[in-house]
Amino acid sequence: MILEAGMLQVRQGAEADFEATFKAASHIIVAAQGYISHELRRCIEVRGKYLLLVQWERLEDHTIGFRQSPEYQEWKRLLHHFYEPFPTIEHFEQVTLSQC
Amino acid sequence: MILEAGMLQVRQGAEADFEATFKAASHIIVAAQGYISHELRRCIEVRGKYLLLVQWERLEDHTIGFRQSPEYQEWKRLLHHFYEPFPTIEHFEQVTLSQC
Repeated sequence: MILEAGMLQVRQGAEADFEATFKAASHIIVAAQGYISHELRRCIEVRGKYLLLVQWERLEDHTIGFRQSPEYQEWKRLLHHFYEPFPTIEHFEQVTLSQC
Repeated sequence: MILEAGMLQVRQGAEADFEATFKAASHIIVAAQGYISHELRRCIEVRGKYLLLVQWERLEDHTIGFRQSPEYQEWKRLLHHFYEPFPTIEHFEQVTLSQC
């Protein structure tokens, strides 16, 4: 299992629109092959900052399967214009886990 | 419930020592009031980069309860010397959650 993670900075004033659009767009990623779960979290200290976490079965489910799918074009169209600057998205493997 | 999150950059060559020390030190944070769960994840793309996620019942359980405890001094002593630069730790509240 691989965790996709990125700190997203949303354009000032667009936060509510982003959150609503993200919720509406979520079905796109939920339906992707290898998707396990996701969460979007709002930063308390920095306005417009969010942490996106998506769990995938395999790295390639995100980097190839999702990003090369037609559905990703719709995900991009709906969400990418909110980000300023464009975020760095990285992938993380487990070292220590104590939850759920 | 509040998620503490930080991207940690560990000094080059100290990664294995950091991981072992983090595991050994975990009992300190696990025992803290308001602690729910934590995970440490290793970045695939950037050597020495880690994502630390800790779930707390309330923001103050981390910012006041843990950070002002005697146990935090031991946590600092064991772990902070691994970080270069020193990380920004932030807190995130839930927007969208689909997991577990």
